[in-house]
Amino acid sequence: MQSTMQDVPLTVTRILVHGTVIHGRAQITTWTGDGTPRRRSFAEAGARATRLAHALRGLGVAEDDVVGTLMWNNAEHVEAYFAIPAMGAVLHTLNLRLPPEQLAWIVRHAADRVVIVDGSLLPLLAPLLPKLDCVEHVIVSGPGDRSVLADCHARVHDYEELLAAQTADAYPWPELDERRAAALCYTSGTTGDPKGVVYSHRSLYLHSMEINSAATFGLKQGEICLPVVPMFHVNAWGLPHAAFMAGTSLLLPDRFLQPAPLAEMIERERPTMTAGVPTIWQGLLAELDARPRDTSSLGAVISGGAPCPPSLMKAFEERHGLRVVQAWGMTETSPLGSIAHPPAGLTPEEEWPYRVTQGRLPASVEARLAGPDGGFLPWDGTSAGELEIRGAYIAGAYHGGADGEPTRPEDKFSPDGWLRTGDVGTITPDGYLTLTDRVKDVIKSGGEWISSVELENHLMAHPEVAEAAVVAVPDEKWGERPLAVVVLRDGHSAEYEALRAFLGERVARWQLPERWVRVPAVPKTTVGKFDKKALRRQYAEGQLEVTVLPPVRAGE
Amino acid sequence: MQSTMQDVPLTVTRILVHGTVIHGRAQITTWTGDGTPRRRSFAEAGARATRLAHALRGLGVAEDDVVGTLMWNNAEHVEAYFAIPAMGAVLHTLNLRLPPEQLAWIVRHAADRVVIVDGSLLPLLAPLLPKLDCVEHVIVSGPGDRSVLADCHARVHDYEELLAAQTADAYPWPELDERRAAALCYTSGTTGDPKGVVYSHRSLYLHSMEINSAATFGLKQGEICLPVVPMFHVNAWGLPHAAFMAGTSLLLPDRFLQPAPLAEMIERERPTMTAGVPTIWQGLLAELDARPRDTSSLGAVISGGAPCPPSLMKAFEERHGLRVVQAWGMTETSPLGSIAHPPAGLTPEEEWPYRVTQGRLPASVEARLAGPDGGFLPWDGTSAGELEIRGAYIAGAYHGGADGEPTRPEDKFSPDGWLRTGDVGTITPDGYLTLTDRVKDVIKSGGEWISSVELENHLMAHPEVAEAAVVAVPDEKWGERPLAVVVLRDGHSAEYEALRAFLGERVARWQLPERWVRVPAVPKTTVGKFDKKALRRQYAEGQLEVTVLPPVRAGE
Repeated sequence: MQSTMQDVPLTVTRILVHGTVIHGRAQITTWTGDGTPRRRSFAEAGARATRLAHALRGLGVAEDDVVGTLMWNNAEHVEAYFAIPAMGAVLHTLNLRLPPEQLAWIVRHAADRVVIVDGSLLPLLAPLLPKLDCVEHVIVSGPGDRSVLADCHARVHDYEELLAAQTADAYPWPELDERRAAALCYTSGTTGDPKGVVYSHRSLYLHSMEINSAATFGLKQGEICLPVVPMFHVNAWGLPHAAFMAGTSLLLPDRFLQPAPLAEMIERERPTMTAGVPTIWQGLLAELDARPRDTSSLGAVISGGAPCPPSLMKAFEERHGLRVVQAWGMTETSPLGSIAHPPAGLTPEEEWPYRVTQGRLPASVEARLAGPDGGFLPWDGTSAGELEIRGAYIAGAYHGGADGEPTRPEDKFSPDGWLRTGDVGTITPDGYLTLTDRVKDVIKSGGEWISSVELENHLMAHPEVAEAAVVAVPDEKWGERPLAVVVLRDGHSAEYEALRAFLGERVARWQLPERWVRVPAVPKTTVGKFDKKALRRQYAEGQLEVTVLPPVRAGE
Repeated sequence: MQSTMQDVPLTVTRILVHGTVIHGRAQITTWTGDGTPRRRSFAEAGARATRLAHALRGLGVAEDDVVGTLMWNNAEHVEAYFAIPAMGAVLHTLNLRLPPEQLAWIVRHAADRVVIVDGSLLPLLAPLLPKLDCVEHVIVSGPGDRSVLADCHARVHDYEELLAAQTADAYPWPELDERRAAALCYTSGTTGDPKGVVYSHRSLYLHSMEINSAATFGLKQGEICLPVVPMFHVNAWGLPHAAFMAGTSLLLPDRFLQPAPLAEMIERERPTMTAGVPTIWQGLLAELDARPRDTSSLGAVISGGAPCPPSLMKAFEERHGLRVVQAWGMTETSPLGSIAHPPAGLTPEEEWPYRVTQGRLPASVEARLAGPDGGFLPWDGTSAGELEIRGAYIAGAYHGGADGEPTRPEDKFSPDGWLRTGDVGTITPDGYLTLTDRVKDVIKSGGEWISSVELENHLMAHPEVAEAAVVAVPDEKWGERPLAVVVLRDGHSAEYEALRAFLGERVARWQLPERWVRVPAVPKTTVGKFDKKALRRQYAEGQLEVTVLPPVRAGE
């Protein structure tokens, strides 16, 4: 029997047309820092997106060409978000925080023909342009010193002048296959070259529907969303698309991401929800503690990108009445992988164990835990395995090399196509995910995994320990065993045996490290994390004075 | 550039697995009328769906085979809803209110190999079975006199015994193409044979996401949904699927659809939302007026299937604090076509003009208004045309004849594939739809459309008019002109000129009827609607004593 349903593609074009017509009066408010935000309706932004598409076509942009954006969160970036995919081209959001060499690498790797750049970011782009042969046109939006582009090989245009020169006629948006490429975002991985994730029209549409569901973010008409997460990070977590689908107004901070202007725009513009990373919320909390503002409009503060310290969540709630909701995702997951709404009907105290997890899996995301021996583990809340996920808005490959074919590195994708997240964690029977480690930091000991993070957290709870890092080191018998690297507090001199006994009260005996070393400080990466690679190298090169305790025996 | 996203199908299987695992503790409560509802968790229902799939396979049901259900809203029907599509077969929900001959026709047309029937509905099924050669197995669920099946050619099974005899092992759900047929529902059209709409896995999944969005029904975990709308009417408006996706518990009324048990189950089981047709709410209102109950758990009462009288909505709100939300759809639209949430920020008084419309179009539904001359009309809130719609969960054909190919009657589908709804209405610039007429009842006069319903409503507002029907009759000059058929209140004798003058203060001059006739009563269809076909036939056959007034001239 054949289905009799229409075969209508799920496209960004549909979201654009719906948002600009049905919700034409919703607003995009862009913060300017001078007390006069730039306000534009969805209808106006839609009309401008039409002009942008005409302009890009005039510059020779054809279907499948890549257009880069080096922009903050602002209305013009939203226009590019819709115009570029809707005309059949590919939006490439450029991460302005990447090291310049990496930024140049991804522009070349993606073969951006046009770059739209905020005037304020010209000092970043201009020095790179001589290395970017692929870029034929640079379109500059907003104020900024354009003289830095004087010798550039690309043709330079002003965004507003370009739009003003176009017809106001409707753009003949092509009917697109929903599996066609719509947007491209590179992960800023710490190892190897950046990897490009190519979102399809279908995946962006489905992700928008998922985050508009009442069970997740639940965007609604009449509300105002403040995406602090940059539009160059996984499409600002999909919020601009979702907002156009739901008719939710957008409040965009442009480059004013410091705590003081964020607090001011929240008080003045009264957003109903916001989303960003914990470090932003840490800064905002300090600002609100120092200079209290009216933030009562905010129904939810969504935190993702890194685990949110429970102390930060509690401080927001107790001191400012704001509810922080944790969510988890990756560039490869569009990004909504899970969201930590607790089950209904619990007291606030009962909710905490759920709220500090990475969250519950939505219907569009399938998950499984791959164990150390390759089998899959039960969802019992304790068995820890590598999280693998599957779904229509989950990446199954990366943008490829010169031949344009997608690549599927074995360590990132399973043979049956699931994404290997590189995260180790547990899942409860009702689908709450807790991530504890990165796979590369886990100690694979005799067919079992030992969580380095768990050992570190227990050690750092010891009153004499200032810092502790645990890394895997090779072991003839077990494959790998943990090496405990500790920094004692000034004036303290705890014995390794005492520290191990302390650990022994908290974890299984077979997990206890034999190898211990005391250092003045744990080496750190540029973003302040423990540099475990450096520690492993120092150990391998014999630079650490390791004490080996006898293994703990049964009955001890 | 190729998208790098996984190619994962959108399927009912995914909804089933998600609901039974992640939301396994959500409940299905089936009303029994004896004070002890039947309670079953989603996890239990999922395990039973697995057994049902094993059982059906054991009976020879293969992929693409059709399994009919002649059942009320109950947990067993939910099990069939998921097991049948997930195993690759097609669920055919049988409308127990159809005339028996039509019911037999659709079972044969769909070639149901198995019918699952509630014991309480055996008296309806048994007499038809001799005409249903295609049916090889009848599975009886729940109490009922099975002796009526004694001479039946089909093998008869007991639902519970069949499930008990199966393995508890997981069923190997096949990986299905999302465009594959999942469920079949026939429209109960008033003219011609019933027409089958074949929903795909994709369309059911997308519709579930759409009604779970915060902007429409917004189902959530921890809430309880009471679908009064039958599960044989457009999948109970998609609520069972959406509930499994969101983790919303289900309260199912089985055959207890009378106002008193409905009021009782609302008071005792405290659903948070309910959905049904206006006649159900009319009955419930009278019941609550007579015997007030605690209905405070209900956040929303969704009304669809027919226009909900504003007086009914206001009575619920004023007397019982219940908010009725109007929605519009058809079997062909899965069914969510529009929902009448007003724009945000209005006062209750300002909300009414929006709440009495059919509602606003969601992102998944595209609409256009086809005018009398074939062109498309502006969305200005006044231009009336036939509503045509498009979308991934909208039908583009009907289940076909003997060759199995879908059929696309010209009057139902446009050449470019849009659904012709047969409804005439207007759309506001911000997407609120108001339907006024059926296309067949509209008067096509000189390239313009005259709404029969609008003329009727104005006429019936005249103090001397008891009933008024307006139908199109042929006219040499204008193609068609309106014939006004009026029933005067007892003891009244208003002149046609006076009635036309009354109308003339309310509609444009060119719309005023020249032809008038007074009758003792307007003929009605079996469901109580004006029988306009009968009136047109009576006119054509000269059975009506028509008075023809001179046309109204400019300036008059």
